[in-house]
Amino acid sequence: MGKKRVMVPAADVDLSAVKYQNEAIQAPHLTGLTFKLFVKLLETPLVGPLIISHLKKENKMIELLQNTVIPEAPIMNALTESETGVVVVDEDGNPEDRVELAMKCLPPYNAASSWNEDLASSFRYWKIRDYAHAYRSKFVTPSMVAEQIIPIIEEFNKKDPPMPLLISFDAEEVRKQAAASTKRFEEGSPISILDGIFIAIKDDIDLYPHPSKGATTWMHEVRPVKEDAISVSRLRSCGVIFVGKANMHEFGMGTTGNNPNYGTTRNPHAVDRYTGGSSSGPAAIVASGLCSAALGTDGGGSIRIPSSLCGVVGLKTTFGRTNITGSLYDFGTVEVIGPIASSVEDVMLVYAAILGSRPAERISLNPSPPCLPNLASRDGADALGSLRLGKYTAWFNDVQSTDVSDTCEDMLNLLSRTHGCEMVEIVIPELQEMRTAHLVSIGSEFINSLIPDIEDGKGVRLNYDSRTSVGLFRSFGASDYIAAQCLRRRLMHHHMEIFKKVDVIVTPTTGMTAPKIRSSALSYGETDLQTAGYLMRFVIAANLLGFPAISIPVGYDKQGLPIGLQLIGRPWGEATLLRLASAVEELYAKPKKRPASFYDVLKTK
Amino acid sequence: MGKKRVMVPAADVDLSAVKYQNEAIQAPHLTGLTFKLFVKLLETPLVGPLIISHLKKENKMIELLQNTVIPEAPIMNALTESETGVVVVDEDGNPEDRVELAMKCLPPYNAASSWNEDLASSFRYWKIRDYAHAYRSKFVTPSMVAEQIIPIIEEFNKKDPPMPLLISFDAEEVRKQAAASTKRFEEGSPISILDGIFIAIKDDIDLYPHPSKGATTWMHEVRPVKEDAISVSRLRSCGVIFVGKANMHEFGMGTTGNNPNYGTTRNPHAVDRYTGGSSSGPAAIVASGLCSAALGTDGGGSIRIPSSLCGVVGLKTTFGRTNITGSLYDFGTVEVIGPIASSVEDVMLVYAAILGSRPAERISLNPSPPCLPNLASRDGADALGSLRLGKYTAWFNDVQSTDVSDTCEDMLNLLSRTHGCEMVEIVIPELQEMRTAHLVSIGSEFINSLIPDIEDGKGVRLNYDSRTSVGLFRSFGASDYIAAQCLRRRLMHHHMEIFKKVDVIVTPTTGMTAPKIRSSALSYGETDLQTAGYLMRFVIAANLLGFPAISIPVGYDKQGLPIGLQLIGRPWGEATLLRLASAVEELYAKPKKRPASFYDVLKTK
Repeated sequence: MGKKRVMVPAADVDLSAVKYQNEAIQAPHLTGLTFKLFVKLLETPLVGPLIISHLKKENKMIELLQNTVIPEAPIMNALTESETGVVVVDEDGNPEDRVELAMKCLPPYNAASSWNEDLASSFRYWKIRDYAHAYRSKFVTPSMVAEQIIPIIEEFNKKDPPMPLLISFDAEEVRKQAAASTKRFEEGSPISILDGIFIAIKDDIDLYPHPSKGATTWMHEVRPVKEDAISVSRLRSCGVIFVGKANMHEFGMGTTGNNPNYGTTRNPHAVDRYTGGSSSGPAAIVASGLCSAALGTDGGGSIRIPSSLCGVVGLKTTFGRTNITGSLYDFGTVEVIGPIASSVEDVMLVYAAILGSRPAERISLNPSPPCLPNLASRDGADALGSLRLGKYTAWFNDVQSTDVSDTCEDMLNLLSRTHGCEMVEIVIPELQEMRTAHLVSIGSEFINSLIPDIEDGKGVRLNYDSRTSVGLFRSFGASDYIAAQCLRRRLMHHHMEIFKKVDVIVTPTTGMTAPKIRSSALSYGETDLQTAGYLMRFVIAANLLGFPAISIPVGYDKQGLPIGLQLIGRPWGEATLLRLASAVEELYAKPKKRPASFYDVLKTK
Repeated sequence: MGKKRVMVPAADVDLSAVKYQNEAIQAPHLTGLTFKLFVKLLETPLVGPLIISHLKKENKMIELLQNTVIPEAPIMNALTESETGVVVVDEDGNPEDRVELAMKCLPPYNAASSWNEDLASSFRYWKIRDYAHAYRSKFVTPSMVAEQIIPIIEEFNKKDPPMPLLISFDAEEVRKQAAASTKRFEEGSPISILDGIFIAIKDDIDLYPHPSKGATTWMHEVRPVKEDAISVSRLRSCGVIFVGKANMHEFGMGTTGNNPNYGTTRNPHAVDRYTGGSSSGPAAIVASGLCSAALGTDGGGSIRIPSSLCGVVGLKTTFGRTNITGSLYDFGTVEVIGPIASSVEDVMLVYAAILGSRPAERISLNPSPPCLPNLASRDGADALGSLRLGKYTAWFNDVQSTDVSDTCEDMLNLLSRTHGCEMVEIVIPELQEMRTAHLVSIGSEFINSLIPDIEDGKGVRLNYDSRTSVGLFRSFGASDYIAAQCLRRRLMHHHMEIFKKVDVIVTPTTGMTAPKIRSSALSYGETDLQTAGYLMRFVIAANLLGFPAISIPVGYDKQGLPIGLQLIGRPWGEATLLRLASAVEELYAKPKKRPASFYDVLKTK
């Protein structure tokens, strides 16, 4: 009795009365044998449900989903909003033509300035246009690059314990692709600016003829890969060279990148630390300078978190903007495919190649046409001054170390001073409701795809942390899922109100820098919801509500670990994000400290 | 192991290999104390879940939802299709104007033929235009009609056991409305053709100042009614007189109309039989001749089933065509508000008044504009000849008694002969998947709205059959709900393929005529899924997929119980259904046997 709580309609929420609640997650941090025992207990009938029920109650899930009357109707997808002052690209045309158009949106390539720097004195990433210039100037060929990359990838696969960047890799196949590209350059007929560019594909996206295991030990047994995913085929038609399937957290159901099945990818900035996840391999292989870009998936920060922790750029596209057909779990409402690269311009080139909605989503989501910012024109730079950036300070500052919030804030102040962007203080109500709605949505959609295989006996072949998630996700009732959709509509309302006042919401990408890897976590994994909370704190609005978001490096903490700034845009507003991110990148162009390359770091160990 | 089943994509289903499976539901038929005990057991921890799990397994729910890989993405709502050769009405205009336009679509009213029949010799229903003529000719006033109706309603409320038509009724309030209408006629200024027309509102739709209990004993305690539902306010602005809140199955979660809380409404054609449900009161009050029309809700046949069993016309509108705001559970994906009346023209007049989508649905569902068939023009009749009627014979014949299927088939043959409608044999695959997807969808959405109150202690104040449903519905996992939405997309595909070949799907409305009421079921209710199966066999496609559907009386079985024919149309295709239903009604105009009025039947008992 008296447990029932009635929410006021979203439109009637009094923002002035909203108090930010520091996120407090109640759960044990378990690794090693203790964790293994915990999972066994969780899977015991009667006891397991009691533990799950206790944890759900402690974290207010019961209160929010079952004791609360939510006056909003359920919503499944994001709403739409259009964008102005940008170049429209044709999502039904050839990827090559789109990449060509993207090239025209970039400032002219200055070979002299790019190649005159003292390359030997400090590490710097080659951009896609650097490779393109080198290939066309014939002082490097794709085959030469392949021979540089292959031994390093092989070295990481052989380490003890293993710390692979790629979990499906075939050197001969890479050499073959490189030779074909080299031949095209010799014949003077490269396909596009992406010809000969090395790209890695996360293991949950189909790259024929590699298996798609999603970092499990068995998914390929039940789901053979017959062709490229749509996004991969778009890159392939541009002449991209695929190095293989990048490592990831099993099924993407974790944010560290911990992987007892194949070994845990290490952070190029500190090998004893996580890359973040779930796109661990994609972020690390880009951050290490081995690939120009990678494709990741992002259902709960899985592109942005590792991009932030590894000091690279990651773009989570608007829900439905890219075509997710041919990825492991392609029927959800939160997950998208997006690019990771070392610079905003490279992210933009890869984004231009892969964008294009699915036909069914073209109808149901009613997207605005995809656009790119014209970074080559003066108008683009002028447009920056009109941007209003929304910051919810209490949330922004709820981080593990003030290094993170201070560094991000310094960049925002610099943006304001340099370009005249206006900072606007905002309030986002119901953040705990948002976290709960996201967890129930992604968990339910994940478990729905997996249940036939779990019931078919594959459940015990999952990692212990996946099994913990499975236990929790299977406990969600149908009504919890619907309640989560009602919350989603509320949160959409709150955010669309905010987007009337600001153009972009700014946050740190993650509430902490790269966490340490406990050696006890390597064999059996771990459960550490506090760390997950810090890593996911700022990322989930973009997943639950379908917004585009980008993470850009803006500095380092006292331990030399990268810090990312997140920009969250209106639905279909990728162009505004890319424009702003490009300005941030330019302001950050002369950092005090630069990362060494991955292999440099490792050689010093 | 080996339990996993993979469905082929819906588009690849080989229809020629589909074999109709007679529906077989595994569940005990329980009434009285045994039923009460069963529910207590069901609500016991550990034992209850085992029973539910057993019943779900027996009825293949586990196999269909948890062991099956469904290759389709989840769908929430119906797709859209447009209609031609009809009169478009303005859903944003005044209801009075729409009713006016509907009048122009009817053949001219012939007072002479209407009033020259020997009214004394056989029962006949007064149509809305009969009342309108009588009021305007001043030989009857709304107040006179009120005085005829009020004592009969009071009589039924006082019976032992009670068998109320209305469960919220205020004679003085009805008299007041009637007096106001009478005054308008005296002043020569009636508002519309619906002025002074008596209409009942199902107890789950708000009719201010009556409570909306949904036939429960407590809903009004937690949800006060502050204004009319949108559909009711549209009728009120046309001058309608509301008699009160019509009886129903508790929360609409049953198909018989059994009601231990307030008494079970009896079938006007046989007082020892059910009306069908859940809109028991609405159908009975129209069938008894006491009201011209009633509004019901239909989430699983709840308008069509009682219309069929009581020998009246019931229209289930396309999902989203009418505005469900102000009904008890208005956030689902299957439920709509629609009219019940004794004739197609009266259904059409009330439909014209209440139609109009919600603004949010106007965006998400993209409905075609609402249309009415022009029954006054020759073109309308000609249009009938071009209609192709789809019949899945194996399904059509899966009824309890051949009286039902034979009578419906006779009418279809008559339609073919008279109007040249073409009969097309069709196959609808995956009917069991459809039933399962519907049950999970409606059950999950229902329980989602109810959970805060159940958790707040109201669960034990529900009827035993509602408690049985609550137990089952709470067992649905989030992944079951998502799987049901995937099945929904498949079924939508199958039906849209069929609608390329036919314009209307024809079935009996119900697989049986009105079932007997066991006296043991009156106090504690009953669970009888076999009867529910017969009653719901043909109705759920329209709910799961949002199609419009209408039930029209076409005859009687050997026991003199009414038989209804169901027409299922394309999304937004109400006009085609009304045109065809009108032709059916005309062909049935001289039946061999007519029902006596409700009170006549009762007087002879």
